[in-house]
Amino acid sequence: MAFSPLVDQLITALRCLPGVGPKSAQRMALHLLERNREGGFRLSQILDQALEQVGQCQSCRTLTEEPICGLCRSERRDNSLLCVVETPADQIAMEQAGGFNGRYFVLTGHLSPIDGIGPDSLGLPLLAERLSQGVVQELILATNPTVEGEATAHYIADMIEHLPIKVTRLAHGIPIGGELEYIDGGTLSRALAGRLPMV
Amino acid sequence: MAFSPLVDQLITALRCLPGVGPKSAQRMALHLLERNREGGFRLSQILDQALEQVGQCQSCRTLTEEPICGLCRSERRDNSLLCVVETPADQIAMEQAGGFNGRYFVLTGHLSPIDGIGPDSLGLPLLAERLSQGVVQELILATNPTVEGEATAHYIADMIEHLPIKVTRLAHGIPIGGELEYIDGGTLSRALAGRLPMV
Ligand SMILES: [Zn+2]
Ligand SMILES: [Zn+2]
Repeated sequence: MAFSPLVDQLITALRCLPGVGPKSAQRMALHLLERNREGGFRLSQILDQALEQVGQCQSCRTLTEEPICGLCRSERRDNSLLCVVETPADQIAMEQAGGFNGRYFVLTGHLSPIDGIGPDSLGLPLLAERLSQGVVQELILATNPTVEGEATAHYIADMIEHLPIKVTRLAHGIPIGGELEYIDGGTLSRALAGRLPMV
Repeated sequence: MAFSPLVDQLITALRCLPGVGPKSAQRMALHLLERNREGGFRLSQILDQALEQVGQCQSCRTLTEEPICGLCRSERRDNSLLCVVETPADQIAMEQAGGFNGRYFVLTGHLSPIDGIGPDSLGLPLLAERLSQGVVQELILATNPTVEGEATAHYIADMIEHLPIKVTRLAHGIPIGGELEYIDGGTLSRALAGRLPMV
């Protein structure tokens, strides 16, 4: 014997959330049904709306429901500095750390031939086009200090070798194998201040 | 700077789930938007449908989208045994444990005057009516062994004192596989008081 079919389906559907196992999913379903139907309806509506409307910024590829995101539209940012990150969460982490006033480019991943993720999936043609316009003077490759992140950074550095652009990497201080998203702001801003030319 | 308004709203809405803090909510929102839109749409739809359709069984008060739940409709259960539990999750735990073939009554909580939860909120008039019909011969009060659960059990026992129904409570004791050394004193003294002849 189990829950009714619809309650069971809800428990199963909740498992699409990362880190949610059978027991947590059950607790979540019962909590919404027994104690917070209003919050549940709001979640259902906003989830549907976000999935319908949120796409990628045409300029930086971050997640946004507008054609061009707020940061790309801002007139207070330095166009000569471009920071390449793997994910929107990394971009937020950089912004929250402070110390960077340039623009971003969000790869939405890293090169991973095994998973079929090549330069096109990461928007590298768009990045190359943007860099060839002669406005960007420094490109900060803030991909994660993992094997894939390093490989992606090297690929991008090679791709624009012919352009007169300074290419830098965040300074060490970031733990090897760590992910930007989970690093404290202090460490991240130190790493930014100590960024070095990529060789 | 933060995420776009809609992404921010989604992160906020996800916090209605129990045990989900700001960081988990962010991770969930980005996971759905970046990697599992299909799962997200399914969750949104089933959540909406469940919140619309799931109510309480008219007989036992458990969560179900039908007027009478599957267990109450089943013809293979013993009508003379009724087990009172606090929540649908407790009912499932009892069923998964096995060994019980009677019917259930789900209080959906326990008496808590401070929170305005009295006998009516727990469906006790419905329970009293059912017990007065003369079919139930034993009532198992399987509320939690907490102060509130005990108080609720005593309230129900008093309520039906005038009826010829045997009222029982789940035994207290040492959990199977538990080590004496790590069991709290209260449980241990109850286990001692309830000791049984070894056969
Ligand atoms: Zn943008
Ligand atoms: Zn029922």
